[in-house]
Amino acid sequence: MSVQVGVIMGSTSDWDTMQHACEILDELQISYEKKVVSAHRTPDLMFEYAEQAVERGIKVIIAGAGGAAHLPGMVAAKTTVPVIGVPVQSKALNGLDSLLSIVQMPGGIPVATVAIGKAGATNAGLLAAQMIGSFDEQVRSRVQARRDRIQQEVLESSDTL
Amino acid sequence: MSVQVGVIMGSTSDWDTMQHACEILDELQISYEKKVVSAHRTPDLMFEYAEQAVERGIKVIIAGAGGAAHLPGMVAAKTTVPVIGVPVQSKALNGLDSLLSIVQMPGGIPVATVAIGKAGATNAGLLAAQMIGSFDEQVRSRVQARRDRIQQEVLESSDTL
Amino acid sequence: MSVQVGVIMGSTSDWDTMQHACEILDELQISYEKKVVSAHRTPDLMFEYAEQAVERGIKVIIAGAGGAAHLPGMVAAKTTVPVIGVPVQSKALNGLDSLLSIVQMPGGIPVATVAIGKAGATNAGLLAAQMIGSFDEQVRSRVQARRDRIQQEVLESSDTL
Amino acid sequence: MSVQVGVIMGSTSDWDTMQHACEILDELQISYEKKVVSAHRTPDLMFEYAEQAVERGIKVIIAGAGGAAHLPGMVAAKTTVPVIGVPVQSKALNGLDSLLSIVQMPGGIPVATVAIGKAGATNAGLLAAQMIGSFDEQVRSRVQARRDRIQQEVLESSDTL
Amino acid sequence: MSVQVGVIMGSTSDWDTMQHACEILDELQISYEKKVVSAHRTPDLMFEYAEQAVERGIKVIIAGAGGAAHLPGMVAAKTTVPVIGVPVQSKALNGLDSLLSIVQMPGGIPVATVAIGKAGATNAGLLAAQMIGSFDEQVRSRVQARRDRIQQEVLESSDTL
Amino acid sequence: MSVQVGVIMGSTSDWDTMQHACEILDELQISYEKKVVSAHRTPDLMFEYAEQAVERGIKVIIAGAGGAAHLPGMVAAKTTVPVIGVPVQSKALNGLDSLLSIVQMPGGIPVATVAIGKAGATNAGLLAAQMIGSFDEQVRSRVQARRDRIQQEVLESSDTL
Amino acid sequence: MSVQVGVIMGSTSDWDTMQHACEILDELQISYEKKVVSAHRTPDLMFEYAEQAVERGIKVIIAGAGGAAHLPGMVAAKTTVPVIGVPVQSKALNGLDSLLSIVQMPGGIPVATVAIGKAGATNAGLLAAQMIGSFDEQVRSRVQARRDRIQQEVLESSDTL
Amino acid sequence: MSVQVGVIMGSTSDWDTMQHACEILDELQISYEKKVVSAHRTPDLMFEYAEQAVERGIKVIIAGAGGAAHLPGMVAAKTTVPVIGVPVQSKALNGLDSLLSIVQMPGGIPVATVAIGKAGATNAGLLAAQMIGSFDEQVRSRVQARRDRIQQEVLESSDTL
Repeated sequence: MSVQVGVIMGSTSDWDTMQHACEILDELQISYEKKVVSAHRTPDLMFEYAEQAVERGIKVIIAGAGGAAHLPGMVAAKTTVPVIGVPVQSKALNGLDSLLSIVQMPGGIPVATVAIGKAGATNAGLLAAQMIGSFDEQVRSRVQARRDRIQQEVLESSDTL
Repeated sequence: MSVQVGVIMGSTSDWDTMQHACEILDELQISYEKKVVSAHRTPDLMFEYAEQAVERGIKVIIAGAGGAAHLPGMVAAKTTVPVIGVPVQSKALNGLDSLLSIVQMPGGIPVATVAIGKAGATNAGLLAAQMIGSFDEQVRSRVQARRDRIQQEVLESSDTL
Repeated sequence: MSVQVGVIMGSTSDWDTMQHACEILDELQISYEKKVVSAHRTPDLMFEYAEQAVERGIKVIIAGAGGAAHLPGMVAAKTTVPVIGVPVQSKALNGLDSLLSIVQMPGGIPVATVAIGKAGATNAGLLAAQMIGSFDEQVRSRVQARRDRIQQEVLESSDTL
Repeated sequence: MSVQVGVIMGSTSDWDTMQHACEILDELQISYEKKVVSAHRTPDLMFEYAEQAVERGIKVIIAGAGGAAHLPGMVAAKTTVPVIGVPVQSKALNGLDSLLSIVQMPGGIPVATVAIGKAGATNAGLLAAQMIGSFDEQVRSRVQARRDRIQQEVLESSDTL
Repeated sequence: MSVQVGVIMGSTSDWDTMQHACEILDELQISYEKKVVSAHRTPDLMFEYAEQAVERGIKVIIAGAGGAAHLPGMVAAKTTVPVIGVPVQSKALNGLDSLLSIVQMPGGIPVATVAIGKAGATNAGLLAAQMIGSFDEQVRSRVQARRDRIQQEVLESSDTL
Repeated sequence: MSVQVGVIMGSTSDWDTMQHACEILDELQISYEKKVVSAHRTPDLMFEYAEQAVERGIKVIIAGAGGAAHLPGMVAAKTTVPVIGVPVQSKALNGLDSLLSIVQMPGGIPVATVAIGKAGATNAGLLAAQMIGSFDEQVRSRVQARRDRIQQEVLESSDTL
Repeated sequence: MSVQVGVIMGSTSDWDTMQHACEILDELQISYEKKVVSAHRTPDLMFEYAEQAVERGIKVIIAGAGGAAHLPGMVAAKTTVPVIGVPVQSKALNGLDSLLSIVQMPGGIPVATVAIGKAGATNAGLLAAQMIGSFDEQVRSRVQARRDRIQQEVLESSDTL
Repeated sequence: MSVQVGVIMGSTSDWDTMQHACEILDELQISYEKKVVSAHRTPDLMFEYAEQAVERGIKVIIAGAGGAAHLPGMVAAKTTVPVIGVPVQSKALNGLDSLLSIVQMPGGIPVATVAIGKAGATNAGLLAAQMIGSFDEQVRSRVQARRDRIQQEVLESSDTL
C-alpha cells in the first residue's frame, strides 16, 4: 500500500523544522515518506514528484521551504493533491519572506499555509491528519485523543505557575 | 445527505470576499452551506457550529475574517474537521493583521491559511475541493478539468498582449 | 471576598512574561488569581472562565498570549469585564503577530492592549490598578506613591551616567 | 456632578474618527466632555488637563492621535486616571506609526490601546463603559444589552447572504 | 537571427506594468519577444521556455509577476540565461510580497531584482540593455545617449518649479 | 559660558547608545551636558528642561529614547531649540517603534531624526556639530578634519581585505 | 548676500511635497533657492552643488526624494552643511522605503530626517529656521510667534467639534 | 587584460558577506578585483571608480552595502556597466533597510538586486557569471557544471534525513 503523506523540503537544513511534522505523523500512525526536493536546485525532480503524487496514492503533500519559498506553490501547480506549505524561519527576515512567498498564491492554485517554523511543522502534520480524518474515522479518533490528552495537560499546568 | 463544506464568515461585509469561495464550490458541484458566524459577537453560535460539524458530516470548514481574525482559529480549536482560513483585507493594515491572526496558530491547532482577499477565497474553495478530491475521484477530476481549461486560456492569452 | 483581578495566560511558557503583571498586583496589594487558560487547547475552560467573571466579582481580566493570540479577544467576547491583553513576544515575528492579533479587534468587543513583552505585562498590572483606582482611592494612592518613588529614582539616576 | 469620561484628540481632523467613541458614550448614557488637546501644539494645556483629571472626578480618559502619537502616553504620564489610546489612521503609514507610538509604552506608564481608526474609537467608548461598568451595575447592564442586541442582528444577518 | 531578450509575465494583467520594459527595448532597438507564461497555471510551458532559452540565443530574460511571485525564480532555476525579476504591485500588500518572493532567492540561483511596479519594469529594460551593452558597444552607446538626454531634461526642469 | 549641546535620554539604559553622541562632542570640543530626563516618568522635569533651553544658551538638544519614544517630540514641542532624536533599539521591534515614534511628527514641530542605535547616536553628535559649524568656522573645520581622517582610513582599508 | 537655505529635490514630481518647505521659509522670511538635483540622473550636478554649499554661504540644505532616496545622504557626504532629508511618499511602499533610505545613514554622515510627505516638508522648513534661529534671535522670534499663533488656533478649535 | 568584475563594498565589515561573491568568481575562474569604496566616506573615489569602469573593461560591478545603502545605486548612476547590489544584513532592521535602499531605484537607473546577506553575495557572483556567460560559452559551461554538481548533491542528500 502506498504512503499517505509526502513530506518534502528544499534542503537538509530544513529538517530541524520539518521533523516536527514527521513526529506527528509517526504519533498518529499515518504512513509517510520524507525527501529533499529543491524547487531551485532540482526542479525536474520536483515536477516529477508532483506529477506522480496522484497515481502513487498520496493524499496530502507537506512542503517546507524558506526565503523565496517556491517549493509548496510549484508542487501545488503540478498536482491536485492538496499541498500544505510550511514557512521555514529565514535568517534575515525571520520567515516573513517565507510566509508571504507561500501564502500569497494567485487564485487558481491554493497552498494550505501554516505558521512559521516548528509550530507550523507540527500543525502541518496535524492538518494532514485532519484532512485524512475527514474520511477515515480511525485517524480522526487519534487526532481527537491527542487533543484530549493535551487539554488535560494544560488544565493541570496551572498548578506549576 | 449532509453538506460537505461549511462556509462561514464573521460579518455580512465579508461576503464580497467569501462569495468567491462559494462560486468555486458551485462550479465544482460540491454541496455547501453559508452562514454568518462571528467569533466576537456570536461566540456561542461559533462553538456550537464547530462542535456539531463532525456529526453533521461536514468534511471541510472555510472561515473568513478580517483584522484580529479569530474565527478560523477558534473554530479549529473546537473541531477536528480541517479549517481553511481566509484573511479578509482590512482597512488600515490591508489584511496583514488578518493574515497573521489566522496563520500564526500555536502548535496543536492548525488552520490551513490562504492568501488575503479574493484570490484567497477562490483558493479556499479549490483547496476544499482538493481535500475532498483526495478521497473522491469525481471531485478530483473536476478540479483537474478546471485547471486544464484555465491553462488553455493562459496559453491563448499571449496573443492579446 | 472575591479576587479583583484574574490573570490568565495561554501557556506556562507565558509565565516568564506574565509574572511581571503579578508582581505589580502584589506590590499594590490588589487581590488576584493566576491560571493557565488556553484559547485553542482549552476553549471550553476559557468560555467558562469568562462567563463566570462578572458573578465572581472580578473587576479586570489580564490575558497574555503570543502568536495568533486569540485569548484576550475571545475572553472579551464572553464577558463585559474589561480585558487587558498582553502580547507575548513570539519567536519568529517578535510579537508583531501577537500585537496585531490582540489590538485589531472589530468594533463591538474591545481589548485594552499594552506593549509587547515584559514592559506590557508590568503595565497590565498598573493599568488594572488604575482602573480599580478610579473607584478606590486607596488603590489610586498606592499607584501614585509608586510613581513618585520611581520619579525620584529617575531624578537621581543622572549622576550615574 | 462631574463628567465621567474625557474624550480628547490632537486635532479637529481626528474628529471623524473620535466621534465614534462619543456616539457609544451617548448611547450608553455616560457623561463625557470632548476637547482638542494637542501634545505638540498645546503641551501646557495637555499637562493641565491631565493634572486636573483626578480632582475633576474623571474616571477614564480617551485620547486619539495619529502619526507620532504622543498624546495618550503623555496624558497617562501626568495622571493616574486610566487612559485609552486610539491610533488614528495616518496618511503614509496607515496608522502603524500611530499604533506603535501609543502601544509600546515603557514599563511604568500604561496606555490601554485599541484598534486603528473607527473600530478602535467605537471600542474606546465601549472599553470606557466596561471600566465604569465594573463598578456600576447599571452601566454594565447597558453594555450587556447592547451586546445582546448586536448578537441578535448578527444571528439574523445570515439570511441576507 | 534570434531575439535577444525574452519578456514574460504571469498574466495579461501584468502587461500594464511590463509594457514599460518593452518600451525601453523598443527605444534602444533591442530585439525581444513577449509572452504570458504562468508559473502556476502553465508550469510545463514555463519549464520548456526556460530550457530552450540558451539554444534559442536569448541573452536575458525579463520576468514579471505579483503576489507569491514564483515565475522569475523558477525560470532562473531552469536556465543559465540571467533572469531579471520585476515585482508587480499586488493588491493587498502593495508588492512587498512580490518583492520578497522574487529577491530572497537561496544561494545558487540568482534573480536580478528591480523595483516594484512601473519603475522596476522600466529599469528591467535598461538593465537588460546594459547587460548586453557590456558586450555590444552600440547598445551601450544608446544607453549612454538616453541617459545624457534625460540628464539634460532634469537640468532644465528646475525652471518649472 | 553655557554649554552648547544638551544630551538627554529617557533612562540610564539608553547610555550605552547615547555615549556615542557624547564621544563625538568630546572629540570635536563642543561643550555639552548629559542628563536622564524621562518623558513618562519625569514629565515635569522634561518640560522645565525644554523651557529653559533657550535662556540657558543651548544651541542643540540631542534626545534619545526607545519604544513609544516621546521624549524628542515633547521636548521639541516646548522649545524652539532644534532637537535631534535618536531612536534607541528596542527589544521586541528592534527600534522600528522608536524610529516611527520619533520621526513621524505632525507638521509644526520638527524632530531631526537620525538612525536607530549606535550609528544614530554618533551621527547625532556630528549633526549637532554641523549645525553649530554653520555659524562657527572652527567647529566646521574640526568636522571637516574628522571626515578627511576617516576618508583616509577607508582608502587604506582595501588592503586588509 | 547669499541664500541661507538650499531646497533641492530629485524630480519636479517632488514639488507637490517640497513646496510646503518653501512656504514655511517664505513665511519666516528666510532666503532660499529651490532646484531639481537628481542623485541618479544628475550625479555630477549633485556633487557640485554640495561641494559649493559652504563657500556659497548656505547654512542648511533641505533635500527631498522618494523610493531609494539617495539625494539627502549623498549631498551630506559631500558637504559639512547640515542636510535635512524629506522622505517623499512613494507609490508602492508609501514612503517607508524613502524613510529608511534617508534615515538609516551609517555613523559618520548624518541626515536630519523628518516625517514622510507634506508634514515632513513643512517641518523641514521649520527645522531649518530653528537651526538658524539658534544663532539669529530674529528668526527664532518668528518661529516662536508662529507657534504661539497656531497654539491659539488649536485652543479655539475645540468649539468646532 | 582587464579584470571582468569589480567587487566593491562600503566597509571592511562587509567583507564577511562579500567574500562569498569572490569565492564564486574564484571557483568559476572569472577575473575580478576587490576594493573598499564607501558612498558616504569616499564619495569621490566612488565616482572615479564608476566613471572608469567602462574604459577599464569591467563587464559587471558587484556592490555591497548595508543600512541606507547608497553605494550600488550611486555607482549605477555613474556608469552603464550593469551593477549588482548586495544588501548587507544590518543590525537593527536585519537588512530590510539595505534591501529597500538598493532595490527601489527610480526609473532610469537600474540596480540588479539580490537577496540579503550571504545567499545574496553568493548569487551576486553567480549572476555576474551568468551575465558574462551569455556572451562567453566557457563561462556558461562552468555555471552549468556547478549547477549539475549541486543538483547531484541535493539528490543524494535525502538519504541523510
